[in-house]
Amino acid sequence: MGESFPMTGGDGPSSYTKNSIQQRASAASAKSLLTSAILGNLDIERSSRMFAIADLGCSTGPNTFIAMENIIEALTQKCKIEGYSSLPEFQVYFNDHVSNDFNTLFAYLPPDRKYFASGVPGSFHGRLFPKATLNIIYSAFSLQWLSKAPQELGDVNSPAWNKGRIYYTDAPREVGQAYSLQYAKDMDSFLAARAEELAPGGLMLILMPGRPDGTLPSQNSLGPFLRPLESCLADMVDEEIICDHEIDSLNMPLYSPSIEELRKLIEKNGCFGIARLETLPPMSVPLPSAEE
Amino acid sequence: MGESFPMTGGDGPSSYTKNSIQQRASAASAKSLLTSAILGNLDIERSSRMFAIADLGCSTGPNTFIAMENIIEALTQKCKIEGYSSLPEFQVYFNDHVSNDFNTLFAYLPPDRKYFASGVPGSFHGRLFPKATLNIIYSAFSLQWLSKAPQELGDVNSPAWNKGRIYYTDAPREVGQAYSLQYAKDMDSFLAARAEELAPGGLMLILMPGRPDGTLPSQNSLGPFLRPLESCLADMVDEEIICDHEIDSLNMPLYSPSIEELRKLIEKNGCFGIARLETLPPMSVPLPSAEE
Repeated sequence: MGESFPMTGGDGPSSYTKNSIQQRASAASAKSLLTSAILGNLDIERSSRMFAIADLGCSTGPNTFIAMENIIEALTQKCKIEGYSSLPEFQVYFNDHVSNDFNTLFAYLPPDRKYFASGVPGSFHGRLFPKATLNIIYSAFSLQWLSKAPQELGDVNSPAWNKGRIYYTDAPREVGQAYSLQYAKDMDSFLAARAEELAPGGLMLILMPGRPDGTLPSQNSLGPFLRPLESCLADMVDEEIICDHEIDSLNMPLYSPSIEELRKLIEKNGCFGIARLETLPPMSVPLPSAEE
Repeated sequence: MGESFPMTGGDGPSSYTKNSIQQRASAASAKSLLTSAILGNLDIERSSRMFAIADLGCSTGPNTFIAMENIIEALTQKCKIEGYSSLPEFQVYFNDHVSNDFNTLFAYLPPDRKYFASGVPGSFHGRLFPKATLNIIYSAFSLQWLSKAPQELGDVNSPAWNKGRIYYTDAPREVGQAYSLQYAKDMDSFLAARAEELAPGGLMLILMPGRPDGTLPSQNSLGPFLRPLESCLADMVDEEIICDHEIDSLNMPLYSPSIEELRKLIEKNGCFGIARLETLPPMSVPLPSAEE
């Protein structure tokens, strides 16, 4: 679990080298962790002729291609260690929302890939695959996205009314609590769906932004990245370009849990055991500035 | 096998009710044939918890959605007849070229669908899926597309040089033969790839435009639809808007076989037995006119 991470950005053809560089660096620093998890925790049946891997929240690449290559490299290593006479075939499912640009993703698929590629549109907060069909489920820097912003944030009569803000940094405690509850619900749906889809002996590998244990939800690392937007919107209200109820009704559906919070959610859900739960070293992420 | 059919057209959102109407009508008239093939020829293992169906050359819908619904309806009927206590889950793979508009396909997926949906980019003249993973392979009005136009058509020194034409209606015999050979090669690659991908007991359902037995390749039903384009290009050469070598080097990669020709190719390939091979009644297809 990476600690200091900006929100994910699109990385289509025009920005292939600009965006999601931090996510790529963090995923690279997690490579040895993922490899050792696959070598140590994945249970491969010797009879398997096919291996299915899903990347949930894949965006349009190229980070997903690098991740899939790393996973297949680790799986190949595992098959060799276990004495496979020939390698199984690999099927990779690239998942993201229906509105994701799958055309770009498909256009940039590595021509020398060692897997069959498939795109799966839909929200990972619900079912996406038939039962017991995936051997590895991977998701990087996507589970900070909630299925929606908590409803009560837009309710003027609720103590969690998030007036004048689009996130919960410096918000009343109730706002952070509403976010925390929504995250708990979403993780529960996510885990229940994945528990159906994962094949016996399978493994789920998740990278996500988090915050240190003992901190409040509002002390997360995503807030500072939303401040400039919030401030611009506040200025637009002052200049009467937009109405104040427009900023009141906009709330970013993002959340980053602490390790302990996540552990408790997974344990309460009960579908999965935790093989490893670790914090990656914080990375220096430059905050957006007005000049950029 | 439909006999009188125009080339497939795109059917994206702006033309959802305009294009591919003929294909839809023809697929509808083949529905009872497909249903009886599934009921009579598909071999279902009682232990199957999941059924995978692929539509090869699916375009962007909605014809593919109707076809998949029909197939799942027939499969459901089959499961009931065979005394399944509960229905298996259905996985549908929508395949077309990488350049197909999968974003549109995904945006128009029926919200009440009874299957998990997935898009598979790539040419069906090669492998697309892991071994033995598909229970039903469906392809409608796509196998008339060759992997490429025969190379010798653009060779000034070949007897199959297709000067001044973009297809082979009224072309020298050698041009039709070159098309016929390319089709044989492509069908061989197609069948070899599908033989690897189809699960034991699986079924392949193909609808494609053809021509009556005893006719020459040049007497196919696709030619008349290309005439207006060919004639326009010839006028553009006359008016020096394009050069004659540009029309010489353009050849449509389309072919429609006779029943006997197709039967021989399938038998020579040897990967598949033929359960049924039939001609659908010819449909009245309006030829394009200058007014349209």
